[in-house]
Amino acid sequence: MYYEVIRACFCHCLFKEQTLNKFAKVVSDSKPSEMKMKFFSVLIVVAFLVAWPCHGSEYQVFPLQMKTGSNEQYTTQVSCTSWRLGVEANNLIKWKTVPARCQEYIADYLLGDQYRSDSKTVCREAYFYAKRLNITAKDVFVFDIDDTTLSNLQYFANHGFGVEAHNATAFKIWVSYGEAFALPETLVLYNKLVGLGIKVVFITERPLDLKDVTISNLKAVGFNTWEKLIARDPATYSGKLSNAFKTSERKKLVEEGYRIVGNIGDQWSDIVGEKKGFRTFKLPNPLYYD
Amino acid sequence: MYYEVIRACFCHCLFKEQTLNKFAKVVSDSKPSEMKMKFFSVLIVVAFLVAWPCHGSEYQVFPLQMKTGSNEQYTTQVSCTSWRLGVEANNLIKWKTVPARCQEYIADYLLGDQYRSDSKTVCREAYFYAKRLNITAKDVFVFDIDDTTLSNLQYFANHGFGVEAHNATAFKIWVSYGEAFALPETLVLYNKLVGLGIKVVFITERPLDLKDVTISNLKAVGFNTWEKLIARDPATYSGKLSNAFKTSERKKLVEEGYRIVGNIGDQWSDIVGEKKGFRTFKLPNPLYYD
Repeated sequence: MYYEVIRACFCHCLFKEQTLNKFAKVVSDSKPSEMKMKFFSVLIVVAFLVAWPCHGSEYQVFPLQMKTGSNEQYTTQVSCTSWRLGVEANNLIKWKTVPARCQEYIADYLLGDQYRSDSKTVCREAYFYAKRLNITAKDVFVFDIDDTTLSNLQYFANHGFGVEAHNATAFKIWVSYGEAFALPETLVLYNKLVGLGIKVVFITERPLDLKDVTISNLKAVGFNTWEKLIARDPATYSGKLSNAFKTSERKKLVEEGYRIVGNIGDQWSDIVGEKKGFRTFKLPNPLYYD
Repeated sequence: MYYEVIRACFCHCLFKEQTLNKFAKVVSDSKPSEMKMKFFSVLIVVAFLVAWPCHGSEYQVFPLQMKTGSNEQYTTQVSCTSWRLGVEANNLIKWKTVPARCQEYIADYLLGDQYRSDSKTVCREAYFYAKRLNITAKDVFVFDIDDTTLSNLQYFANHGFGVEAHNATAFKIWVSYGEAFALPETLVLYNKLVGLGIKVVFITERPLDLKDVTISNLKAVGFNTWEKLIARDPATYSGKLSNAFKTSERKKLVEEGYRIVGNIGDQWSDIVGEKKGFRTFKLPNPLYYD
């Protein structure tokens, strides 16, 4: 409410920052003898403008002042937050690495409360949605694995939090350890969905030769039951984009009689395309684009 | 880099917060005479653990500690930021009003640098995309109007920044004034696209009887030229959802031979559905869901 009162009145009276600055300059440029008098004149003008009845100002706030040019005008914190929002809202696509200037911002985000809170908000919404459904035996909820179910944060902490170019070999070695921990908010959601009687189907870009270690890893951290776990068969999907693979596997599910009531992933490629599910959920991931 | 060193070593040695807390308890529960000795024992254990060679710890960071329950566990700032992200990434849908606890957060967001920076990031990406196109005479870029081109911030500042229930009558009166200001980042993008030779088509939910005032308002703030301005005909689209109207109008454009190379709006309903455009851009808007 205080915004209405202060901004509406000041705006209507065209009493902008520039005017204030001009007054300040008049005062500071003056000799001491003149200063006192000018200061009081300024005070009177200010009092007059503030007291001016702001007719018709009900709908007024400051127009946002124009800034032009393409160079960076915001602090790193602000512009890195914008970069991350652009990624999450699918405005920024096909990027290769996190901007170098945002490395520390991304590290702080992932290791702090905001990432947890963002994930929790998504998972809670997914649960609230699911519990209103009338579940049948053929209803499935599709889960991605990497950075949806299992966290690769340990890996990325050692690879510049996304600033380094992707290293497929190193990443495969990391996955082969089977030591990823669970994303806690997703684990809560998973348990709640299983409790509601919804079957879980994992669809992962991980190749078939990493399926066993993936199963061990999932079980070790609390993901104990599922209807199917579909890994990528390199023979079938060689050279295909992630989205093509996932769409194709979802179509097979539907052809088998399943109904995809929900679909959750950390990449837009997980949750767009045909048979994407009745409702989709995008978990945060500012580390890579797939 | 400092994350690797500190977290990797501590994690491998299983030197978790709980362990520290246990040590702290041992010390604080002791009599003064015992305390000194126990304190030194603890120090020795800590020194030993820190100095322990952390073999294989290269990929280790702290597992994110599990938090359960559905009650709010984060500060308002953090949880309102999550709410806004949930809206922008299309995870939170069909909401009626901004959560009351987030009113001040949303006001600060919209009146501060972050909203401007977020909008600029989207508009720059749209321009970078457009300037790589080979433009033809039939290429159009679709723009929404409310809170994409013209800002209704002045209205919402007087209606609780989205916390109040939508009032269609009051909003229509505000629009009829024709006093909305331009969203500066969109205006920059608009001028750049026009400069590239791309035609602009406005598609707006505003009804036909507000078309004239909308045209005056657009021209007054610098949107001077367009190929078409399509307002909602209540006779044709009575009771239809926003997305059905917009999809239908886009299909007509394509049937007329236009190629929708881009599409920008502040609502997901602007940019999903058939003929949505080769690429879509979502501007921030945490004030309402349509």
